[in-house]
Amino acid sequence: MKKILVQLDSDKSPSVFDAVTAYDSGVDNLLQYGDIAPCQVRDLVHGAMFTRGEDALKNSAIFVGGSDVTSGEEILKEVVNSFFGTVRVSAMLDSNGCNTTAVAAVRKILSVGEVKGKKVVILAGTGPVGMRAAGLLALEGADVLLTSRGFAKSEKAAATVSKRFSCNITPAQVSSPEETEEALKDASAVLCAGAAGIMLIPESLWAKHPTLQVLADANAVPPLGVENTKPHWSGKEVEGKIIFGALAIGGLKMKIHRKCVAQLFTKNDLILDAEEIYEIAKSI
Amino acid sequence: MKKILVQLDSDKSPSVFDAVTAYDSGVDNLLQYGDIAPCQVRDLVHGAMFTRGEDALKNSAIFVGGSDVTSGEEILKEVVNSFFGTVRVSAMLDSNGCNTTAVAAVRKILSVGEVKGKKVVILAGTGPVGMRAAGLLALEGADVLLTSRGFAKSEKAAATVSKRFSCNITPAQVSSPEETEEALKDASAVLCAGAAGIMLIPESLWAKHPTLQVLADANAVPPLGVENTKPHWSGKEVEGKIIFGALAIGGLKMKIHRKCVAQLFTKNDLILDAEEIYEIAKSI
Amino acid sequence: MKKILVQLDSDKSPSVFDAVTAYDSGVDNLLQYGDIAPCQVRDLVHGAMFTRGEDALKNSAIFVGGSDVTSGEEILKEVVNSFFGTVRVSAMLDSNGCNTTAVAAVRKILSVGEVKGKKVVILAGTGPVGMRAAGLLALEGADVLLTSRGFAKSEKAAATVSKRFSCNITPAQVSSPEETEEALKDASAVLCAGAAGIMLIPESLWAKHPTLQVLADANAVPPLGVENTKPHWSGKEVEGKIIFGALAIGGLKMKIHRKCVAQLFTKNDLILDAEEIYEIAKSI
Repeated sequence: MKKILVQLDSDKSPSVFDAVTAYDSGVDNLLQYGDIAPCQVRDLVHGAMFTRGEDALKNSAIFVGGSDVTSGEEILKEVVNSFFGTVRVSAMLDSNGCNTTAVAAVRKILSVGEVKGKKVVILAGTGPVGMRAAGLLALEGADVLLTSRGFAKSEKAAATVSKRFSCNITPAQVSSPEETEEALKDASAVLCAGAAGIMLIPESLWAKHPTLQVLADANAVPPLGVENTKPHWSGKEVEGKIIFGALAIGGLKMKIHRKCVAQLFTKNDLILDAEEIYEIAKSI
Repeated sequence: MKKILVQLDSDKSPSVFDAVTAYDSGVDNLLQYGDIAPCQVRDLVHGAMFTRGEDALKNSAIFVGGSDVTSGEEILKEVVNSFFGTVRVSAMLDSNGCNTTAVAAVRKILSVGEVKGKKVVILAGTGPVGMRAAGLLALEGADVLLTSRGFAKSEKAAATVSKRFSCNITPAQVSSPEETEEALKDASAVLCAGAAGIMLIPESLWAKHPTLQVLADANAVPPLGVENTKPHWSGKEVEGKIIFGALAIGGLKMKIHRKCVAQLFTKNDLILDAEEIYEIAKSI
Repeated sequence: MKKILVQLDSDKSPSVFDAVTAYDSGVDNLLQYGDIAPCQVRDLVHGAMFTRGEDALKNSAIFVGGSDVTSGEEILKEVVNSFFGTVRVSAMLDSNGCNTTAVAAVRKILSVGEVKGKKVVILAGTGPVGMRAAGLLALEGADVLLTSRGFAKSEKAAATVSKRFSCNITPAQVSSPEETEEALKDASAVLCAGAAGIMLIPESLWAKHPTLQVLADANAVPPLGVENTKPHWSGKEVEGKIIFGALAIGGLKMKIHRKCVAQLFTKNDLILDAEEIYEIAKSI
């Protein structure tokens, strides 16, 4: 029986990235649906639920994507609401690659050493990747500081993450070099989760930093988030710091993405969001 | 050469149900088209007709679906109008599952015994499933009574079916328990073809009915069409009556659906509508 | 690794013709995108570029189609602009079949003998097929005359082709039998590239023509472009002339189309437009 993945995408044209990755994960046939609103979800999900019975149900699964993460979360909620008891199929949320990228960044940081009781900073962390990484690092016991250019925005994001992951994230405003320095004080690790093409940490700050051990950067477009580094650095040691560029994180993200899609077809009741994807990534 | 099915669906998002079933019927690659209006059909059908020659043409076929049966019928008409003589591909109509469900219900009723010369009632029969079942039962020689809550509606549906299947269906209004009892008088079999979640025959009526031998119910959502029965009953005998629930009918419907899609790829000139699907179902 | 083709189509419903031909060319999975505007192209192309690395990149490719050739050309331009250096995928343009049909017609004409220094006429040549055929014949050294019912239109098309193919096409108005005769004077070959169902050369003109050796006709719908011929004639000799009908050209077009799509997956940096498709066709 063929492995069929239903791609529910909130964008007008469903992601080619997610489609190619689905096929590279062992999917036999993909059904692509773009411009999906939550109200359309139920009929489509029922079509996946009611065509294959019992053990065969695990051969159908759902992937929720698109550039808008909030829409993706609403779609996933509708997917789950469409199930009847054990008559259900596995589903994964990775709108804009948020879950797989956040998990890859956290795994890279953790590969250097545990973060329990240590301060970890998520610079420009109010986007989907930053928020999910903050939550996952907090679950690992880190004291997480999540920053934004405006305090209100960081406060809102920190509250959302704290509630979602049942943890306690500290917000901070970072809109000047002095505030960056203050935010990084006593920090053991930092993740630059800002927009592409914006430098967040000058070399003068990170190279001589007394406590920083790990720097991770999700930005692959120059200027990079961490000044004078390279996107392909994968744990390169410079000035006693271990540095992970965006391409190194991206390479791991691809492996995680593929493994999670493959996992969908092992059972019919998986819901893969940040925590579940994080667990699966541990075995890579 | 790959078996390619072109799914022409009148709904915005083409049916996942039909897509998964297509792959489970042996289709290699599905081309999904949603939001199809009759005026778009010709170009798409020509694309199926002019890409593979002679014997190879049977490897391309068309499936017309969507929740609106009238739209589906118009699309199928355009499909057929697009052919040039022997340069054509096979096509099947099953908008909203109407043909395969009606055929499955009729096959279940017939499995108990022939209906020739007997009275068969289609309760709430003005929908696509009820109308097609009425026609097929009339072709088997039954005296078919088709009911609706309003007489005018039953009259219109009966006339449409009579014309379409060259038979003579009798209309009746059923809007009260008394009218239900009157409609079922002397009936040998009944099919509940109404909307989901509406009870049509109280147990007090069917359990002691003097002539009813078979009850079939297309409604899987409680309250069921036949009171105090189970959707999975597949010919269960209760009070001397044989009862078929919606899941039993649905299981047969899936087999018929798959067999018909597979059949499309055996020749390049099949048009599978109610009668043809009924014939194919006889071999299951 | 599966061969994935991304079909970017400017029409609302992506072409079934191109889709079936893609599968018949060895594509494993097709991703169909309709209603594509140039502004949507970048994200989709990046999805093809960033999912498979290095040598594996050649397993992803892009096909640009749709009934509007100008839109297709704009889409292809955006595809190429989306690439980063060597991180790219192969792409092919064949909106409305213009490239593969023009190449097939030119190959048929050339099969009779070379055109270097000879006069070749493209009747009603202002459409995509006529313009591309004009350019390719000029590259083979022919003196090409491109005609239209209005002189201004032929002049504009001739200028466009001359610029695009760095050659020198002569325009001419042909709106009467006398102008047709004048245009064909001293011609060695002619291609009828007009709309379906319009006769362009009466038998009385071509049958006794003193210099014409080859006639090719892209119109398969009666009345044909060359009077009293047959669409399936593939090099049939009549009155000392070699004649190619639209079905014969179409048969070669299919072979060229399939070979070019297959070629896309041999390297990751091919851009297949008129000249490249012409080169590939030489090996058929």
